[in-house]
Amino acid sequence: MNDRASTSIKASAPHRVRDATVNLAHGSGGRAMRDLIEDVFVSSFDNPTLAALEDQAVFALADLAAHGDRLAFTTDSYVVDPLFFPGGDIGTLAVSGTVNDLAVCGATPLYLSCAVVIEEGFSVDLLRRVAASMQRVALEAGVAIVTGDTKVVERGCADKLFINTTGVGVVRHDVSISARNARPGDVVIVNGCLGDHGAAILVARQQLALEADIESDCCPLNGLIAAMLDACPQIHCLRDATRGGVATVLNEFAQSSNVTIRLDEAALPLREQVKGACEILGLDPLYLANEGKLVAVVPADAAERVLAAMRAHPVGREAAVIGTVERNEAEANGLVVMRTVFGGQRIVDMLVGEQLPRIC
Amino acid sequence: MNDRASTSIKASAPHRVRDATVNLAHGSGGRAMRDLIEDVFVSSFDNPTLAALEDQAVFALADLAAHGDRLAFTTDSYVVDPLFFPGGDIGTLAVSGTVNDLAVCGATPLYLSCAVVIEEGFSVDLLRRVAASMQRVALEAGVAIVTGDTKVVERGCADKLFINTTGVGVVRHDVSISARNARPGDVVIVNGCLGDHGAAILVARQQLALEADIESDCCPLNGLIAAMLDACPQIHCLRDATRGGVATVLNEFAQSSNVTIRLDEAALPLREQVKGACEILGLDPLYLANEGKLVAVVPADAAERVLAAMRAHPVGREAAVIGTVERNEAEANGLVVMRTVFGGQRIVDMLVGEQLPRIC
Repeated sequence: MNDRASTSIKASAPHRVRDATVNLAHGSGGRAMRDLIEDVFVSSFDNPTLAALEDQAVFALADLAAHGDRLAFTTDSYVVDPLFFPGGDIGTLAVSGTVNDLAVCGATPLYLSCAVVIEEGFSVDLLRRVAASMQRVALEAGVAIVTGDTKVVERGCADKLFINTTGVGVVRHDVSISARNARPGDVVIVNGCLGDHGAAILVARQQLALEADIESDCCPLNGLIAAMLDACPQIHCLRDATRGGVATVLNEFAQSSNVTIRLDEAALPLREQVKGACEILGLDPLYLANEGKLVAVVPADAAERVLAAMRAHPVGREAAVIGTVERNEAEANGLVVMRTVFGGQRIVDMLVGEQLPRIC
Repeated sequence: MNDRASTSIKASAPHRVRDATVNLAHGSGGRAMRDLIEDVFVSSFDNPTLAALEDQAVFALADLAAHGDRLAFTTDSYVVDPLFFPGGDIGTLAVSGTVNDLAVCGATPLYLSCAVVIEEGFSVDLLRRVAASMQRVALEAGVAIVTGDTKVVERGCADKLFINTTGVGVVRHDVSISARNARPGDVVIVNGCLGDHGAAILVARQQLALEADIESDCCPLNGLIAAMLDACPQIHCLRDATRGGVATVLNEFAQSSNVTIRLDEAALPLREQVKGACEILGLDPLYLANEGKLVAVVPADAAERVLAAMRAHPVGREAAVIGTVERNEAEANGLVVMRTVFGGQRIVDMLVGEQLPRIC
């Protein structure tokens, strides 16, 4: 497939879109759609598999098997509002998020699809900017965007742009990560400050009176996770803390593993600006979305090794132990309990209602 | 993963959504979202991989290798309006469409993801109906919906419901299908009447004064295609004729293979109702969308064998030869030319503008 695709690229100059905005013809399946796809996506994502413009991408299973013995498959749609925010945009989010969902199960992310739903009237230039962001993160993460789909809906029938990315990767031979694997004595680690993405979106929406200087933490975590797994292939649980925040991930670990997780509030890494914004608005940073933060549950004897590996990586410099795992014999398990800075205790429940819509 | 998932299903009764409509909390990443996913998707799609509610589905590469040596990967978003139409709904479309995109490259479709973007206020019951339709077609096609994502946007920010399905399958060892493989002397075959889906959507939108009784042809084609490939593994080109219709597919074949395709208008299988509707509205059935129709280019000596295999299959009974492939030595190739019923000739170009928005 690749050879034929390369020939195709050479054979014909890529088409350019002359319209300033996307119209319904760009979603029709005809020539206008082909021009949009070639101009915006094929030229940005720059790989022969996509450039072939077949309806599928095809790969040799033997090449996949070089990375491990299990295929991982994950999907996410991105509807973030606004599309551009400090620290990223819907494109960086769409690639980072799906890469991270693959990486947290111990997979090497390899290929992504990209399906867009565009509102009629959306700027072609902004679409090019989003595609360029996607490709920048894809290169950083070492993945290729190999197949796609373009739909256009009438004005008022979608809010500017939605992106779905679906990813495939291959799980390393030596790992067995699951929300069910937390064991008494394990240590809970995060790779840095919590809530930056959620707070950045709040600021970008001007829902905050504060002019706080907060950037989204949106980034691919597969490099960090590879370093962590090299240091300790026996990591028990690993998940990126996106919608619902760290509290939701820890509750899922506690329930799935039937353990109690004890957090230490004083140990939570938080930026002053995020802490301030949360205090003013009555938000809890444990529930704020992150887009470049993970929660790991590791055996106690591996904790120092994992922390050292994390701190040596650009997106793990502020890694910290935030809690421990135990199993109560007398009482119920499945809970997350936090020792507060005032010396008290409180239960950190799952998010029940809605904190922030369209955060990702 | 499967074992653990089964345990999980037994361990806790599935949560039910008591709300009649979807609200923003159902997309928040918290408990309300989990309840919606368990009620609507996990219970409909009924498989242990999805039920585990991990962020990824994981499969042994060895199991995939039993089907062939190449992985196929394809994505499509569905934004059809209206959601329910004669012959199907957005759910039947979302599964059939992606199954067909895998099958036309010679792949056995295996696993699908399902990512929904829901407008706040959408009926939970209608969502259950759509999920049930998806599962019905998935069972018919022999695929499992193994991973998903749920986003909810504010009222007015999406039109009711959009679905992305992304699929993985494994390509049979013995096939080599590509738009570049059409050869002079080959025969062009379709599996039945053209334009039914496009015409059914027009009628459902009441954009037609006619009260025509037209049903969408929406269905999975992987069974038919397997029968065709069993009869002739050397099928040269194969594609489902969705947006842009048969005309667009044939133009892509003609350009990619640098050949001229000659159609015979009298041979085009068309329902009287579709023909009538097209005449009244000035539409060309060659550009109308299909969701259960394919175009195959096969070596002449295999045509009878392929036709016989198709006619023996429920969705190929009306299969017909509609044209032939040639290569002009003197003039340009890459064109589709039709012999009209009046004895003239006309060029069947690619769709340039927009015929029908939101057809799929």
